[in-house]
Amino acid sequence: MHEIPRSQEGVHFTVDSSSTSYGLPTVAYKKSNVTLNSTNDYDVVVVGAGYTGLIAARNVSRSGKRVLLVEGRDRIGGRTWTVDLWGNKFEMGGEWVHWAQPNVWAELTDYGLTKPDDFLQTSGSAEPEFCSMSMPNSEGSKEYSTSFLDKASLVQSLDRTTKAFFDVDGQGGATIFPFPYTPLANLEAIEKYDSLTVGDRINQLSGFTKEELDFLFSNLVVFGNIPPMEAGFLNILHYYALAGYDWDRLMQASDRYKLKIGHSGFANLVFADIAGDAVFSDPIKAVTHQPGSVVTTLQSGATIRSKHVICTLPLHCLSEVDFQPPLPTPFSKVRHPNFGGKVHIHVDAKIPAWCGFADSDAPVDALLTDRYSSREGTYLAGFPGGNPWRQGRNVVGDPSEFLQATFKSCYPSKWSGKPTDMLWHDWNTDPFSRGQWGAWGAGQISTSFKSLTEAAYVSREIVLANADWAHGWTGFVDGAVEEGKRAASQVLSYLKG
Amino acid sequence: MHEIPRSQEGVHFTVDSSSTSYGLPTVAYKKSNVTLNSTNDYDVVVVGAGYTGLIAARNVSRSGKRVLLVEGRDRIGGRTWTVDLWGNKFEMGGEWVHWAQPNVWAELTDYGLTKPDDFLQTSGSAEPEFCSMSMPNSEGSKEYSTSFLDKASLVQSLDRTTKAFFDVDGQGGATIFPFPYTPLANLEAIEKYDSLTVGDRINQLSGFTKEELDFLFSNLVVFGNIPPMEAGFLNILHYYALAGYDWDRLMQASDRYKLKIGHSGFANLVFADIAGDAVFSDPIKAVTHQPGSVVTTLQSGATIRSKHVICTLPLHCLSEVDFQPPLPTPFSKVRHPNFGGKVHIHVDAKIPAWCGFADSDAPVDALLTDRYSSREGTYLAGFPGGNPWRQGRNVVGDPSEFLQATFKSCYPSKWSGKPTDMLWHDWNTDPFSRGQWGAWGAGQISTSFKSLTEAAYVSREIVLANADWAHGWTGFVDGAVEEGKRAASQVLSYLKG
Repeated sequence: MHEIPRSQEGVHFTVDSSSTSYGLPTVAYKKSNVTLNSTNDYDVVVVGAGYTGLIAARNVSRSGKRVLLVEGRDRIGGRTWTVDLWGNKFEMGGEWVHWAQPNVWAELTDYGLTKPDDFLQTSGSAEPEFCSMSMPNSEGSKEYSTSFLDKASLVQSLDRTTKAFFDVDGQGGATIFPFPYTPLANLEAIEKYDSLTVGDRINQLSGFTKEELDFLFSNLVVFGNIPPMEAGFLNILHYYALAGYDWDRLMQASDRYKLKIGHSGFANLVFADIAGDAVFSDPIKAVTHQPGSVVTTLQSGATIRSKHVICTLPLHCLSEVDFQPPLPTPFSKVRHPNFGGKVHIHVDAKIPAWCGFADSDAPVDALLTDRYSSREGTYLAGFPGGNPWRQGRNVVGDPSEFLQATFKSCYPSKWSGKPTDMLWHDWNTDPFSRGQWGAWGAGQISTSFKSLTEAAYVSREIVLANADWAHGWTGFVDGAVEEGKRAASQVLSYLKG
Repeated sequence: MHEIPRSQEGVHFTVDSSSTSYGLPTVAYKKSNVTLNSTNDYDVVVVGAGYTGLIAARNVSRSGKRVLLVEGRDRIGGRTWTVDLWGNKFEMGGEWVHWAQPNVWAELTDYGLTKPDDFLQTSGSAEPEFCSMSMPNSEGSKEYSTSFLDKASLVQSLDRTTKAFFDVDGQGGATIFPFPYTPLANLEAIEKYDSLTVGDRINQLSGFTKEELDFLFSNLVVFGNIPPMEAGFLNILHYYALAGYDWDRLMQASDRYKLKIGHSGFANLVFADIAGDAVFSDPIKAVTHQPGSVVTTLQSGATIRSKHVICTLPLHCLSEVDFQPPLPTPFSKVRHPNFGGKVHIHVDAKIPAWCGFADSDAPVDALLTDRYSSREGTYLAGFPGGNPWRQGRNVVGDPSEFLQATFKSCYPSKWSGKPTDMLWHDWNTDPFSRGQWGAWGAGQISTSFKSLTEAAYVSREIVLANADWAHGWTGFVDGAVEEGKRAASQVLSYLKG
């Protein structure tokens, strides 16, 4: 078996030696398959090799058009990639998929990846034996108590609290997103509820205990890792609508099924279907629209002339590229508030399937078991919350302190098991993401999000596409696929007409 | 504007003159774009231009393979086609689509057809002002009484009765199809419940009034138009699982949203993307597997040699083709029991949005408003039930008598409006369908359906694909797309490897 190549990305902290190493093995690693000359000419340049770019490049190339894919990283997948280590696969970003997500599911159907055997289930979200909730002992305290919760009553409680939470319109929320893949179809309702935060809405609920509402909040917060008084009610109602107004189904669609071959395995299948050229480790510097063509300039100095550019960079990275003429304002100014993180932690004991939630001041909003390791231990996934101060900062900070604080606040004290290793990708400091997936705060759907969706097809020559403003599963892999498909169709229609 | 061409298919009955005419206008009409010679050579022959064949041919052709599509009819679309008449579009077979159907929704995304404006809503199923139920006045009577039902209490009643109906496992039915796109994943449960008929299951329910159970049955029966003591409980549980265990969502996915451009408009977009040849009005006669190739013989005598054949004929038509070597037994022997029908009726009055159900001995199981006509009337859609004697027979019989009996039994007597026209396609006598969409009776999922799914990829050279045994939305347009995608992927993998 070939050794798995190593990306420069990803961080590994070893607890014993208190050492941090950078760069992790992944099948997503790629080298350029073309050497750019002084003059390069393509029908379409696709910027960014995340799912949006991969799907767009594949769809354009299979119509026989000459496509160049350019990527700043040394790998495909963007904010979704898989580390292969210790005989296990770790999803460093996007992870779970489901048949309620039509665009990615249709792709999985094409690639023969829809059978039960094609998936692994995250144990702590699929069928936890234990759930726990960690709360500070007093207001502002750094001392937390973690208590186990009765699973059956939790499920019932969450069924009632989520129904109440979403039912702002007496119709379970169903009047607001009547066409969930056209999120602004009922703009009047969107404008009416847009300013409502998740925290506001929870405060409006009555007839529930504080514990029930805390638990509701903990479940809601993972959809964007955004603090309660900033997180948008509509952002999460949109997902709820996409999942058919069923909380249980939304959870199943969001954190249960992951691909056995890993996202990078799947992305490799799409990549292999691109009949075109690809350049890696060469970020773009400028995109200049000239009469009759677009010139893309890379950091290496290479320039590429093409009829069209599909730029799939995340929203937060667009302002670093010199677009001439400049992009419409929203694309350089708008920021979504998702600056949380994700870590994989190995503990040296086999602990039962478990899902732990914590209040939003704890180092992680949620910590849950993923699966057992081959060394008699357990892999956990943890989600540092996206508190605003985390923008531009490493979400982990000092890894030793982070682990100590995480375990002190969230890990049930009666269980054995100490952390031995932690893996993560710091999306906030990553120049190619500058934050996590696009999730929207209160007041942003009717303004920022709306303006992005309206202005993304800048011209016939320049099309912007990214899951950050996907119409359906915004921020999800499904949204990335949707955006890639739509951008390719649009550009192909330009090339035809 | 060009005149819309006319297919030989479809029937129009005019009440006034009591006259029947055959052949209706449709954009699905097609002529061959190639003249076959004595020797014809392709990589892949796709038999049948329904959605399965269109998608398969498109996907294979865009990998640069030489594809020939052959079709016995004079049009594309198979059991899904659209008649253009009186400034209206009538879906003669498959009609409704929804975002809970991932394969067709992903296609609609590619073709830019996911916005609210891209759809029309069938008024009687989208938001009926009135619902009614028609029952014989006494056992075996041909006299029916139609009573209006209170809508709010109906919705509540149906919510309770459907939940009870599906909950055979104490989990709302969720343990039986844990992976609804791999329907046999829990074979043990499938075998346990397969013999249960819809009628059996209704008889097991307690705590409901007879009226509630009658109404439940009427709602269930439209999923296959199969008599209660033959219809399979699992067939409908499978759809319920696909819709996320939510009756309301299942109904929305099944009979609410239709394409404004019509299925034939959509099918034309897929057809235009096939980079290959197509022959129409020339049914296949034989498929002979010879060493290294397959020879397909058409009724015209033309023979085509190819590396692979994807045959997308409906199950009930396969036994009429001379396959050498013969197909696995299930493909010549198995029959599903769906022999119902669908009619479009114009009445000369504007009646409110309405959905009427009738007991299964009435001429139609359901009659509902579609939309107003431009001549101050209303179009209704009616669904003749698939009673077994209808196999091989025209579901309408004598159109005058059919209309009289239908209106006498189901049409609320207090409303004005008399039928003026009726349009239909008689799927049961049609040699290219010999029945309606594949829906499965009690005892068939673990036997017939299972054997079809297992044997469909007959050899590397001959692949069978049809919505009749689709893994997901069996019998739906989504299932057809799924089958076409999967068959194309399979054959492309053979061509590569």
